[in-house]
Amino acid sequence: MTTILKLGGSVITDKDRAETLDDAALEAAAEAIGNALARGQAADLVVVHGGGSFGHVNASDHGVSTTQGSHDVAALHDIHGAMKALNGFVLSRLLAADVPAVPVHPLSAGARTGDGSLELNAAAVTTFLGEGFVPVLHGDVIAHEGAGVTIVSGDEIVTDLATALEADRIGLCSTVPGVLDGEDAVIERIDDYGAVESVLGASDSTDVTGGMAAKVRALLGLEASASIFGPEALEAFLAGERPGTTIG
Amino acid sequence: MTTILKLGGSVITDKDRAETLDDAALEAAAEAIGNALARGQAADLVVVHGGGSFGHVNASDHGVSTTQGSHDVAALHDIHGAMKALNGFVLSRLLAADVPAVPVHPLSAGARTGDGSLELNAAAVTTFLGEGFVPVLHGDVIAHEGAGVTIVSGDEIVTDLATALEADRIGLCSTVPGVLDGEDAVIERIDDYGAVESVLGASDSTDVTGGMAAKVRALLGLEASASIFGPEALEAFLAGERPGTTIG
Repeated sequence: MTTILKLGGSVITDKDRAETLDDAALEAAAEAIGNALARGQAADLVVVHGGGSFGHVNASDHGVSTTQGSHDVAALHDIHGAMKALNGFVLSRLLAADVPAVPVHPLSAGARTGDGSLELNAAAVTTFLGEGFVPVLHGDVIAHEGAGVTIVSGDEIVTDLATALEADRIGLCSTVPGVLDGEDAVIERIDDYGAVESVLGASDSTDVTGGMAAKVRALLGLEASASIFGPEALEAFLAGERPGTTIG
Repeated sequence: MTTILKLGGSVITDKDRAETLDDAALEAAAEAIGNALARGQAADLVVVHGGGSFGHVNASDHGVSTTQGSHDVAALHDIHGAMKALNGFVLSRLLAADVPAVPVHPLSAGARTGDGSLELNAAAVTTFLGEGFVPVLHGDVIAHEGAGVTIVSGDEIVTDLATALEADRIGLCSTVPGVLDGEDAVIERIDDYGAVESVLGASDSTDVTGGMAAKVRALLGLEASASIFGPEALEAFLAGERPGTTIG
């Protein structure tokens, strides 16, 4: 039973201040994970975290995105260094909560081919899982054939790993309690993008909802169903419940 | 024309003091590499460095070796953290010498299967090379099926990558000017392990020569010939010469 848990960058960092941790939120999430493991829940767990104010600020300063590449080695080190710093904070809080967390950096683990498709090697992740560790991945820069380096987002890593590991459960811990409809109520289940397109498309200009539309579309393409929920529902998700919005 | 250059841990660190850099030696090596690149030499270059007093002290404190594993997450972080710190120093000196160096951490890039064989994914390394960067790898801890984590040495990474990349030139920059015979003279060429076994075996109890015997054996198994030389010959090697001992 493999679970992939994404901790949104906006959950664990202060999105309004460059390279600022939301330490209370991160510690609460780490504690929820530690409690679940202590209860024998979420046995084969992979954690993926976003960039929040660490990754996005540096990436946008250097004009690097998932498609816009750079050959500037200083840009690479700024973005990768910021993400490693955030990953170090996440690891330290998880270790303090007795989670046997180990870092797996996407930059070292794979690359994009010329058409932009992600080739992430999962050998480290699967072997660490088998040995009882909790691999922790993150949004990162990654070598991109013909483009230098581009960004790989935490969400892209989640969908890539979900397929590679044949994950049974996928959870996205976000700042919102789920995918919201036009009246800000949580939509319980989404099986079909067309049915919610008008709602998600309506406020497509805001980053959060634009991100949400992309998340929903990617998650609908997976074998396993996924949950999108808020931090207060993390323990429930790890206990096997389906809080927030279930997708697919 | 792909070149793999190993900077020995004993070259770039003070082996007698825990976690102590030999900064003068490291800066000289970085400058030699920067000069070679500026002259258009060693176009597709991969750098691998050993652990020296960073990796070995931590590994032996925790009783972890290439075959003796550990499931202790604190041991993993001690060893991996020390090697990442050393890698950070190597990167910073290379960047200062205008070498577009990028870190590729073996822990993230692969694993050992149950029989101990190393499966290191080379996608990041090959894509970075194609985009004009210089990937820098290092000895590390790595997930090992059935054993937790074990050590992967810089030498093992060199031989693994040499095959994966079909490297044309392999250089091991060591503290000695080459493989020495019974009278401490540099042996110019070794084609056959049997012919030098008595010399290398004679002082097999010392770490340096024990390491040398293992190096020679592994390098003889490669397609390309390899050079073992001292720091003073690094520029000559990068310029295309064959200083020190040529193996295979």
